[in-house]
Amino acid sequence: MTKTERKVRIGMVGGGPGAGIAESHRIGMRIDDRFALVAGVFSRSPENSRKTADRLGVAPERSYASFEEMASAEAARADGIEVVTIVTPTDSHFPIAKAFLQAGIHVVCEKPLTDNLDHAVELDRLARDRGLILALTHNYSGYAMVRHAAALVRDGGIGSVRIVQVEHASGWAAGPVEGRWAGWRTDPAVAGKAGVVFDLGTHAHHLLRFVTGLEVAEVSAELATCVEDREVFDDAHVQLRLTNGARGQLWASMAATGQEHGLRIRVFGSEASLEWRHEDPHHLVVRHHGGPVEVLAQGHAGLS
Amino acid sequence: MTKTERKVRIGMVGGGPGAGIAESHRIGMRIDDRFALVAGVFSRSPENSRKTADRLGVAPERSYASFEEMASAEAARADGIEVVTIVTPTDSHFPIAKAFLQAGIHVVCEKPLTDNLDHAVELDRLARDRGLILALTHNYSGYAMVRHAAALVRDGGIGSVRIVQVEHASGWAAGPVEGRWAGWRTDPAVAGKAGVVFDLGTHAHHLLRFVTGLEVAEVSAELATCVEDREVFDDAHVQLRLTNGARGQLWASMAATGQEHGLRIRVFGSEASLEWRHEDPHHLVVRHHGGPVEVLAQGHAGLS
Amino acid sequence: MTKTERKVRIGMVGGGPGAGIAESHRIGMRIDDRFALVAGVFSRSPENSRKTADRLGVAPERSYASFEEMASAEAARADGIEVVTIVTPTDSHFPIAKAFLQAGIHVVCEKPLTDNLDHAVELDRLARDRGLILALTHNYSGYAMVRHAAALVRDGGIGSVRIVQVEHASGWAAGPVEGRWAGWRTDPAVAGKAGVVFDLGTHAHHLLRFVTGLEVAEVSAELATCVEDREVFDDAHVQLRLTNGARGQLWASMAATGQEHGLRIRVFGSEASLEWRHEDPHHLVVRHHGGPVEVLAQGHAGLS
Amino acid sequence: MTKTERKVRIGMVGGGPGAGIAESHRIGMRIDDRFALVAGVFSRSPENSRKTADRLGVAPERSYASFEEMASAEAARADGIEVVTIVTPTDSHFPIAKAFLQAGIHVVCEKPLTDNLDHAVELDRLARDRGLILALTHNYSGYAMVRHAAALVRDGGIGSVRIVQVEHASGWAAGPVEGRWAGWRTDPAVAGKAGVVFDLGTHAHHLLRFVTGLEVAEVSAELATCVEDREVFDDAHVQLRLTNGARGQLWASMAATGQEHGLRIRVFGSEASLEWRHEDPHHLVVRHHGGPVEVLAQGHAGLS
Repeated sequence: MTKTERKVRIGMVGGGPGAGIAESHRIGMRIDDRFALVAGVFSRSPENSRKTADRLGVAPERSYASFEEMASAEAARADGIEVVTIVTPTDSHFPIAKAFLQAGIHVVCEKPLTDNLDHAVELDRLARDRGLILALTHNYSGYAMVRHAAALVRDGGIGSVRIVQVEHASGWAAGPVEGRWAGWRTDPAVAGKAGVVFDLGTHAHHLLRFVTGLEVAEVSAELATCVEDREVFDDAHVQLRLTNGARGQLWASMAATGQEHGLRIRVFGSEASLEWRHEDPHHLVVRHHGGPVEVLAQGHAGLS
Repeated sequence: MTKTERKVRIGMVGGGPGAGIAESHRIGMRIDDRFALVAGVFSRSPENSRKTADRLGVAPERSYASFEEMASAEAARADGIEVVTIVTPTDSHFPIAKAFLQAGIHVVCEKPLTDNLDHAVELDRLARDRGLILALTHNYSGYAMVRHAAALVRDGGIGSVRIVQVEHASGWAAGPVEGRWAGWRTDPAVAGKAGVVFDLGTHAHHLLRFVTGLEVAEVSAELATCVEDREVFDDAHVQLRLTNGARGQLWASMAATGQEHGLRIRVFGSEASLEWRHEDPHHLVVRHHGGPVEVLAQGHAGLS
Repeated sequence: MTKTERKVRIGMVGGGPGAGIAESHRIGMRIDDRFALVAGVFSRSPENSRKTADRLGVAPERSYASFEEMASAEAARADGIEVVTIVTPTDSHFPIAKAFLQAGIHVVCEKPLTDNLDHAVELDRLARDRGLILALTHNYSGYAMVRHAAALVRDGGIGSVRIVQVEHASGWAAGPVEGRWAGWRTDPAVAGKAGVVFDLGTHAHHLLRFVTGLEVAEVSAELATCVEDREVFDDAHVQLRLTNGARGQLWASMAATGQEHGLRIRVFGSEASLEWRHEDPHHLVVRHHGGPVEVLAQGHAGLS
Repeated sequence: MTKTERKVRIGMVGGGPGAGIAESHRIGMRIDDRFALVAGVFSRSPENSRKTADRLGVAPERSYASFEEMASAEAARADGIEVVTIVTPTDSHFPIAKAFLQAGIHVVCEKPLTDNLDHAVELDRLARDRGLILALTHNYSGYAMVRHAAALVRDGGIGSVRIVQVEHASGWAAGPVEGRWAGWRTDPAVAGKAGVVFDLGTHAHHLLRFVTGLEVAEVSAELATCVEDREVFDDAHVQLRLTNGARGQLWASMAATGQEHGLRIRVFGSEASLEWRHEDPHHLVVRHHGGPVEVLAQGHAGLS
């Protein structure tokens, strides 16, 4: 069996009952068919963790009571995990990622990496020093049409980038969600005081970088809290200056009442502009200066 | 391990290199996480079949040279397959499905079941007589919003059904495709002379039945061949009278130049109408008489 | 003053209080700025007609009691009307149009011309014999993008026409409208038993002819009445064979619950297809075989 | 004839050959059918002005050589104009408007009123002191669905306003337009150095005020010039704080490559949000928190 054919041994931290993102990770792994989930800490309760392990086909002895134990035990096994995926709330990303990187294990971590720049830099340095992968699941860049958008920009298909409008504005927390499903996302102690900047803004920021190939050079931001008694910022408007001198706006909101997922990007170049919306992910609109609007679609239409 | 927790043992007939639909079946099985693919005839060439088996993790001794051999061998094993999925071209569905049903194995078959009513009836009778499942992959009814549409109609949400417009009109074969990718779909000996009626019309017909809960009572059809030198019908317009007296149109085409997948349905009732389009599958539009148009979206918008 | 600069003297039959279509005609004339409305029979009641004449600035002596009087009086005046526009219900079109044509006056008539082929032929012959214009207000062909669609087809921009889908399916009469606003449109004595075929089907038929340049050669139609106690057909599905051998469907309905105006056309050629929808009249979608989808927009974007 | 029935006597300054906006004013007046255009200075060249007057049916003696002459002569006539509409480039609005207000004549002026706050305040004071109307043609608030949006907000239909996103981002000047059609719009001496802020930003600002009923309390703006050698700002991103504490963004651009007219607004309240786009002006989308998305349409669907 060649190396690229055998499955990658992966572990998971987080992902007990009701954990939506963990389930997305697991479905994604199955679609790719390149990963074998063989270890985990699926809950703070060892009993719940064991139950989830059973359900997922993870051997009982590899259902650990803590991530520290998991990192050292797996690092010691000949058939130990090669990579761990971290699907816990934000505040625990740093210690968990650090433990696995120190144990020589690659890390896939949910966004945001940390709510603290120093911690992020430390993890990045740790990974680089040891030649390990430290990956964040900015998954929207996986869409074919987002990749095509990025290729178009790189290939000069829209000319030089002048203006970028990116937003991730969802209505999921337009009412009180505290103490309910995913309520930790508005708990400053867990999700960070900046709230929506970490929660959704990171996706918008990543999408901008991925599609344009540019970095944000300067920002001027207006953070606000729309929902009464909320303790994190749930709305952020950010003016951007990009590294090539282009200007832009990033809007991240969890209080955009009535919006669905709300991720979209528009990039305006000197020759054309492009628009991608997550609600219609398999199309990319390209508008040529003085010319037609093209709607590009993913793949061919033959299968039925 | 409870019965609902262990995986269903499944085999596959068809699905060698380049077989798009087979790959869809396999991805679907992995997403569901309820099936173990343990046997197959993946190609007419035993060598190619073995290679695919290797890649899929199917044991060499369960990579068979023929479906007949597979049906009898698997039926004889204590751990034999419980169900087979048939992903071959149309003309072979009947003998393959018959062999597995006769061997007491449930069958999932790609649409159309056969290109011949007698054969279809025989398979249906065989399955019923033995208490076996004979399922067709009319997969579009799996979309949440299609299911919601069906529920709305059943619950009286649109009043009594008066008019149905359904179409599956793709541009995949608007030019010559014969002798190329999926070229068998326009070969009358393989796909049936009725061509598009089997190929796409079946999906439209099923969608109509699934959403409305009605059957087609009478038809008046106009079959045509748009592309020169084609030997099957590639365009079909059908007037419909449904069992409740409602009227409708079904349009199936593989020559609808420039269209993508092209599956959509509109149902008009006495109180409201609904519209679903496969190009935007996660939304359902409901238009109330004298009232607003509602766009219903699948699920909540919380995950990101 | 040159001939093309002076205004055309026009009269109107119909168009008293509450007459929506007449108001559309009058607004259209003012936008064009090429017509002077100088005579009329605006109501069956001479008093109501006079009031409307006053409001419209028509001289009292040219507010007539009957169309017969109007035709002869205006024909006799040196400054008599050159053209009359007929905005009455369907059943009166024939005698009115006939009277004006016989008086040597050009006629603009609301659709449908008549509910009777013999009458239509007679009017057509009358106009031709006298060198007069007999125009129907199939106004949708006035949209720039409809004209562009027709030009594209003529210029070979979509190859040879293969399939046409045209519909004018509105929800305006999906419930009982009899005895209410525009209730005459479902009165068989006034609107004709074929109802929706005349009312909306004529627009769809004209749009098909205008855009494709083809004529309908053969039809197979299914007429139905959806709304209880209605005395005209309110739903019509028509299979079409066009003069070049292309196939198509025409759907006309006044019972398409929840739909707005509902006029749209799709034309599929051997090289590309095009789509125009009245709800988005300033855009035309062109889908190229194997190539991109283009959205063409009317005019430039400079004015603001 | 009652006062409301006779037509308002109006004059025009500007609007010679090729003047698009003037033609829009004239078409609008004819649609309304409430104005009689009886005087004007249609060009700086008296000869061109006279020709346009002839074409428009304005008496030669009321085709003036200068606005000053027109203001005094019309003010002196018993049948003089009651109102003037000013459709000249921006830099001349102030002296023209001032002259007519001082002559006791109401003023309709193209936006922006002036490129200078002091001048605007002076005109406003002049109009108030004399009880005259000083109106700007922020015409987009005339759309039925914009008016409905404003009514919805006033009536509490979306709860309290939290976030406003408004943009008027057109691609009309994404390439060099200097010295061509409407080139004055990028000439700082005529249009003002702030360029797009006056040209399109004013519409966005007005739309925000009209729909929300709120005023802008504080701004933080980023003005940029995207097109080489341009002498005005052609792109403006503005962070907004509104009088009720709501936050927002206003984006005005004439360099939004490939965009059509580009005017749109989204208002997010505590209970629902609404969206209106000028490219689809007859619909208004209302998204309810936790509930459905409604698409409201203008008027009924009965006429055809």
